[in-house]
Amino acid sequence: MARPLSTPLAVSLGDPAGIGPEVIAKCWDNRAAFNLPVFVAIGDPRSIAAVWDGPIEMISDPREADAAFDFGLPLIQLASPQADTPGHPSVAGAHCSLDALEIAVGLARSSSAAGVVTGPVAKEQLYAIGFQHPGQTEFVAERCGVAPGNVAMMLAGPTLRTVPVTTHLRLNDVPQKLTASLVESRGRAALRGLQRSFGIPEPRLAVSGLNPHAGEGGKLGLEEQEIIAPAIAALAAEGWRVTGPHPADTMFHARARANYDAALCMYHDQALIPVKALHFEDAVNVTLGLPIVRTAPDHGTAFDIAGQDKADPRPMAAAMHMAADIAAIRAEVA
Amino acid sequence: MARPLSTPLAVSLGDPAGIGPEVIAKCWDNRAAFNLPVFVAIGDPRSIAAVWDGPIEMISDPREADAAFDFGLPLIQLASPQADTPGHPSVAGAHCSLDALEIAVGLARSSSAAGVVTGPVAKEQLYAIGFQHPGQTEFVAERCGVAPGNVAMMLAGPTLRTVPVTTHLRLNDVPQKLTASLVESRGRAALRGLQRSFGIPEPRLAVSGLNPHAGEGGKLGLEEQEIIAPAIAALAAEGWRVTGPHPADTMFHARARANYDAALCMYHDQALIPVKALHFEDAVNVTLGLPIVRTAPDHGTAFDIAGQDKADPRPMAAAMHMAADIAAIRAEVA
Repeated sequence: MARPLSTPLAVSLGDPAGIGPEVIAKCWDNRAAFNLPVFVAIGDPRSIAAVWDGPIEMISDPREADAAFDFGLPLIQLASPQADTPGHPSVAGAHCSLDALEIAVGLARSSSAAGVVTGPVAKEQLYAIGFQHPGQTEFVAERCGVAPGNVAMMLAGPTLRTVPVTTHLRLNDVPQKLTASLVESRGRAALRGLQRSFGIPEPRLAVSGLNPHAGEGGKLGLEEQEIIAPAIAALAAEGWRVTGPHPADTMFHARARANYDAALCMYHDQALIPVKALHFEDAVNVTLGLPIVRTAPDHGTAFDIAGQDKADPRPMAAAMHMAADIAAIRAEVA
Repeated sequence: MARPLSTPLAVSLGDPAGIGPEVIAKCWDNRAAFNLPVFVAIGDPRSIAAVWDGPIEMISDPREADAAFDFGLPLIQLASPQADTPGHPSVAGAHCSLDALEIAVGLARSSSAAGVVTGPVAKEQLYAIGFQHPGQTEFVAERCGVAPGNVAMMLAGPTLRTVPVTTHLRLNDVPQKLTASLVESRGRAALRGLQRSFGIPEPRLAVSGLNPHAGEGGKLGLEEQEIIAPAIAALAAEGWRVTGPHPADTMFHARARANYDAALCMYHDQALIPVKALHFEDAVNVTLGLPIVRTAPDHGTAFDIAGQDKADPRPMAAAMHMAADIAAIRAEVA
């Protein structure tokens, strides 16, 4: 999996009171077994020391990571570190997680890092310090000068990749927020992302319906005919290989999955239920449409188990692998 | 799997122009390999002869099925048979599928059949002949004298069973149709069904949220707090083991599934996506809350492939197995 990269991955610790520090440290512990690329953690070393006894190699430049990686977990420290008790998030911790994200993105933007892997943050705490974005994805997009509408979140597992058109909306708000232009722009971001980040020259996109049975010819809803089909037609007219709208319940079994490279879904759970049902331990959140590589494990801060040595490092390892793979593919394509 | 039953299963052919006749005939062909219980088909023999060359044993009483089963597919003919061309549904075919369903239910009601397995019907054609029910489930409920609100559709695979609270609604209509009393009654039907039809004395039910992240504490919707949690509390107050509301995207991986016997989901795709992603070939539709046993394969008429020898008989075989298992469990419990 891990191909040699010329620069390390920059891995932000996320919220210091969450499981981010623990899973990142465990990844370094298991770097050989997981076959991980060289990475540098960004954050407060005390949040790691609180949950892990291993060696930390403090560095100030990502170029030192390669040499340090055999001796300890390479870490770039924040200017104003704030230690939190595991499991007890705070406003100081939110500043800490935001600073780490900012530095990680900056390293990737300046080509000092091959890509960014982000640890989980606590949105509630971030909102409390004035964070204006729905999540890390939108923050990274802004720092990269990309409009939020032109990035897309992909959830990628070994046999299924999905991209939700809408994300963190109440279910009641989904139908009214769904427009043909949004379906089209997310679809285009997904298709370009499959080319650029996954090295698929002629990607195939399967688009779901919104309603049961994809509306059953209009009897169970008109969004398929009025919103989704026109978006599919517009993408097809550009030469993309796009099918649908498909009934969502019959899109995700093995034979159906063989017919497409990614599924474009209309809302959060429609996209995330199948990927997590099939690939809970190794589904990776990938941001498409950015000039930099960005992945994340698809789990939250899990404050309830933080500091108890219970957190599973495999999703974080999967996110590192995918970041390295995408960075290698992009280096080849470029 | 197939336990000896004292009476055969009654299997309605469904729409004569769909794949029902073909998959039922193929089940008889593979009766040994699939280890199937004795069953009798109900319908028009010409719809089978149009797609299958095997022997048909015409019988008039289910008691003849056992002796006939070794020699041919036992079949009870309809009073007014109507042959259709495979792949071309008609109004006559709709009458045919409705007659077959009526007879099959009658046989089970009178204990002449151990249970009913229904072949797929074309709803559009049924509506054209004045059929007033949303689907076969509601028709069977009425014939059994059970109010539609007291039955529940379960989709059951080897490692996951789900019950949708709402079924064939536009997604836009789901939030307003969801009430605490509906969640509660479906939950109770699911729990009683797990006891009665699956032989689980103290069933565990996991209830999903409606919104992403189960509403994230109210920030992504209030239905969890206002509708779902009160229904869970009401069921728990009766002594049932019920948990939730759970974020739907993290409910369906293997470790999560180990914590419950069935998942109660808020809408069609939330319930059907995970079961079909995991168990496409052997997911069975089971109607809970009826005095009779009723199962069905979870696929439609598939007119596009009817008559081409392409239809997979395994879902129908799985539906027969489950009907036989449930009949055996009910016989023990009774």
